[in-house]
Formats: sequence, structure tokens, C-alpha cells
Amino acid sequence: MQYKEVSQLVSEELQILEGELGRHLASRNPLISQISEHICRSGGKRIRPVLVLLCCKLCDYQDKDSVVYAAVVELLHTATLLHDDVVDEAATRRGTSSANSLWGNKLPVLVGDYLYSTSSLLVVEKNQPRILELMANTIRSIVDGELLETFKCRDFNVTEEEYFSVIGSKTAALFALCCQIGGVLGKKGNSHDKALAGFGLNLGIAFQLIDDLFDLIAQPKKLGKPVGNDVKEGNITLPLIHLLKQANATETERIKQIFQNANGNPVDMSYIKELLEKYESKHYVLQLAAKYIQQAKDDLSFFDDSTFSEALLTISDYVIDRDF
Amino acid sequence: MQYKEVSQLVSEELQILEGELGRHLASRNPLISQISEHICRSGGKRIRPVLVLLCCKLCDYQDKDSVVYAAVVELLHTATLLHDDVVDEAATRRGTSSANSLWGNKLPVLVGDYLYSTSSLLVVEKNQPRILELMANTIRSIVDGELLETFKCRDFNVTEEEYFSVIGSKTAALFALCCQIGGVLGKKGNSHDKALAGFGLNLGIAFQLIDDLFDLIAQPKKLGKPVGNDVKEGNITLPLIHLLKQANATETERIKQIFQNANGNPVDMSYIKELLEKYESKHYVLQLAAKYIQQAKDDLSFFDDSTFSEALLTISDYVIDRDF
Repeated sequence: MQYKEVSQLVSEELQILEGELGRHLASRNPLISQISEHICRSGGKRIRPVLVLLCCKLCDYQDKDSVVYAAVVELLHTATLLHDDVVDEAATRRGTSSANSLWGNKLPVLVGDYLYSTSSLLVVEKNQPRILELMANTIRSIVDGELLETFKCRDFNVTEEEYFSVIGSKTAALFALCCQIGGVLGKKGNSHDKALAGFGLNLGIAFQLIDDLFDLIAQPKKLGKPVGNDVKEGNITLPLIHLLKQANATETERIKQIFQNANGNPVDMSYIKELLEKYESKHYVLQLAAKYIQQAKDDLSFFDDSTFSEALLTISDYVIDRDF
Repeated sequence: MQYKEVSQLVSEELQILEGELGRHLASRNPLISQISEHICRSGGKRIRPVLVLLCCKLCDYQDKDSVVYAAVVELLHTATLLHDDVVDEAATRRGTSSANSLWGNKLPVLVGDYLYSTSSLLVVEKNQPRILELMANTIRSIVDGELLETFKCRDFNVTEEEYFSVIGSKTAALFALCCQIGGVLGKKGNSHDKALAGFGLNLGIAFQLIDDLFDLIAQPKKLGKPVGNDVKEGNITLPLIHLLKQANATETERIKQIFQNANGNPVDMSYIKELLEKYESKHYVLQLAAKYIQQAKDDLSFFDDSTFSEALLTISDYVIDRDF
């Protein structure tokens, strides 16, 4: 199955989703609409909503409410983007200017809060306490991950274990939530829920591994967003952790200098890219991502084969095979 | 009844509350504890928890879980303080340095998110969907109010109606939640819930009216926090709205200049204070606050007389009789 066919499987729902998002982003306060539309409507791939929709179908949940939950996770994701952009110098997000560089910090923070509470209210209205519980835990996990990341900012002694704790909490937990929603709504029971959570977690970790690698080595044009954000923000991600273990004193010094300058200019980025090749750090990260994708696929094997499990396998492959 | 006697009525619960807060502010991440303890433990009057506890008792809810809800509203309130302090120059809060002036913006935003999700989780664990719904609506109301306030920042044409919409949403809604929790837990039924919501709303509006007046005319030492924050942040509050309706061209110009400078220095503050006396704006606000307190008391008359209704009446008087 090709990736295009995957979104065709849920194309009707995705169209309704855009309407739903528009409805929730509308507000008596024009600033709320402007800011949230800016970040939520600038052409993300909607991978999280797609996961919700496919996992609902995988679990035989056919109700049109699945779109509401697809909207919930996208609103939640948008809120985390708005808050994660605070202060740091991520000048662009999804290829367009970040909300914070246009509106300062205060408004995007409040709009993020507005989106958090909107997504909670949507689930409250549907009377789904189990999903609310998963959601509250996920939000706390995301924040926990971002706090640990901020805490380890520019710390060159950060360990692989800490890195995985960060990406597991800040990225993979939300992927897991997306998949678990299908299990809860389809009332599939504990072992299926566990398999879905495992699939989401492993997929999310692989997704972030590749995202972090791309941020160091991709061509901005192909990626559709600027690279070097982690250098600017001081996040020491896995490719660098692996590289720093082997680099000699001169190389280490230069990398520290690059992080000190925090501008991620092309010369600096080329230097990092070269070292990532030299020490096979790129290869190391790709291999690890492939391992996590294999685990994700294993989790999925718990389910009978269907168009929907096939679609989820296609997404898994896509996560590591994206072009860069 | 004196105000001291009020807190004696719930002194045992308030002591347990401090332990609860400590437990929830503790985290594997030392920064979460530092920041949230800094803002949550710097000696606020805990008026919101006291309202929760008294309204629970008023509604014959005797369970020790009332303390959990007292903690929930204080965590929620702390989260809103952290987010409301973003970017603006409120250098101190509750007499000590604001979290943001010490840690920048990003960490306090994330810690605020952490507190929001912690408070949601506490209610999720107690399996109280109605309170969760009230809470999600309250959070959205608070954010709505803060957004409108930010939107009307330095707008000298802001109307009384808009001002009341701001304080109703950002302050009074949380007071209403505090009181409603007692009704829900005590299962008192709709008319009692409505009376409690009305009491909280009216009390909250009077509280904010006085707070906004204090910010312009109080002596910092007596208030325990600096004055002039609204001048620095550009919030045109009711005393000023009333004053600007009557001020002559020279006075209006000078006030606009003072807001432009946005430093709230003692000379500027004295000038504003003088005009508030001259045009009886202080008197106007005090009278309005008294009217809302009377409405709050009327709402309370729906309940039979008891030590607890008396305590709530004492709090109502205290809100407008505070010394300044």
C-alpha cells in the first residue's frame, strides 16, 4: 500500500475534521482564531488524526464521533506546539513563521490554554472518562518530557537514557494516546489496548528519532521547514550524543562552540553533518529507528490482518523512509 | 464572626491542604518543585480553598476528599498565575519575585501546564465527571477573560461592559467553581447549585473590583505586593474607565502618557490617585463592589443559617472591608 492510499481510507473523515477544527478555532475573540488557525491550519500532515481514525476502524468503531477525537488530538498537539515555542528561537514552524515570533509569548500561551481546555471539553461532552484519564496523563507526560528537555538544555553529558525519556514522554505518549482511543471506543479490552499503546509508543519514538536526525542533516527545502532548530535551542539529540562519545577533543570543542553560538548557520550545520557521517551516527540512529518500527509492527501483529492494519504498517514504513 | 474565626473553622483541612500541595508539587524534576513551590507557597491567603471547604460543609459534605478539591482549585489558580505572568512586566507576585522574572517564560509555562494536568488528574481519579466539566469550562472562561484583557490592553475606549466581561471570566468564574464544588459533592440539587454559583460569581466580581482599585491606590507595604501593575501592563480597569469619562483633555493626555511610560512610578501613581478622588471614581467602585457583595449575600440566603453560612458572610464583608 502507498502512503497516498492510506489517507484515502480516511479521506471523508479528514475533510470533516477540517470543518471541526475550523469550528473549534472560531471564537468571539478574533485573536484566538488568528493564532490557532495560523498554527493549526498551516498544512501539517495530520498524522495524529490519521492514527486515531485508522485505529478506530481497526477496532471496528464505526461511529462518526471518531472525527471528534481526531480533532481532540490535533487541538492538543497544536496547544503543545504553541507552548513549546515559548521564548526559544524557533523562528518557523511547519515552514511558516512561528506564532510566537508574530504575537510575542503571552497570546500564544493563552491560546494554547484555550485549545487544551477546548479539547478537554470535547471529551467531557462525550462522557468518556477513560479517554479523559488517558488524555490528562498524556498532557502531563508531554509537559514532563519538555521540562526534562529544557532541564538538559546544552548539557553535553546528557545520556541516551535521558534522551529516550524525553522523546518517549514528549512525542511518543501522544502517538500512544491516538492509537489507544480506538481501543477504548471499540471496547476491545486490555490486551488490545496494550498492543495499541505499544504500537503508538514505538512508532512515536521512531518518528522523533528521524525528526531529530532530519533537523541536523536534511535540506530545508525538502523538509519544508528550517533545519538546525535543536542547535539553536540547545537540544542535544541522539545523533549528537552518539557522535560526542567518539569525537576527538578538537571536534568536541568546535561542537560546543556551535551550540554556544546557537544560530545553526550553514557552515556549522555542514560541519556537524560531516561528523555524523564520519562516526556513523546517522547510520546508528537510522538503525535504531528501524528497530523501533519493527517493534511497532510486532505490536500490530496482535490484530487480524485488514486494510486498516495494512495502512498502519504503511505509516510505519513511511516514518523511516521519508526522503531527506 | 471575625475573619480569623473563619479560617479556624477549616484549620484542620487547611493544614492537610499544605501537605497535599507539597505532595503534588514534588516531582522527579527539581525545577517543577522549585517553580511551583515558589509561587504556590509564598503565603497566599488560600481564599479559594477556604471557599471550597466552607461550601462543602455548608452542603453537608463531610468527606475528607474536600481537601483534594481545595488543592485542585489552588493548583489551578497557581497555573493561571504562572501563565498570566508571561511576558508582561509583573515583577512581583504575592510580594516575592514572579516566577517568570527568575526563570524566564518557558519553564513557568510548562510548570503551569503541569499543574493544570495534575489538577485534572486529581478530579479524574475521584471519578467526578460533573466537576471535571465545571473545571474545563472554568479554565476556558479564565483564558477567555485573559485573552479579552490582553486584546483590550491600552485601549482607552474599553467599556464598562467589556471590563465586567473580563473580570467575570478571569476571576469570578473560578470563585463560582470553588463554591459549586460543594454543591455537587453534597448532592444538593440544581437550585442550591445555582445559588452557590451566583454567590461565587458576585463575590469574585467584588473581589476583583477591590483588587483593581487597590492596585491603583493602595500603599504597597499594607498590600504586601507592589501597586501599579495594571499601569505597567496596560490594563484599563474600572476606576480608570470611570475617571476617563470625566477627565478633561489635559488630564486624559497625562494619563495616556503614564500608560505609555508603563513604569507606574510613585509620582504617576499619586497623580492617578488624586484624580480618582477628584472624580469620585474610588467611591464609585467601592459602591459597586458593595452592591455585588449584597447580591452574593442574597444568593446565600437560599441556605439555612449555620456557622458555615455565617462564615461565608464574614468572607463577603472582608472582601470589601480590607484595609488599604
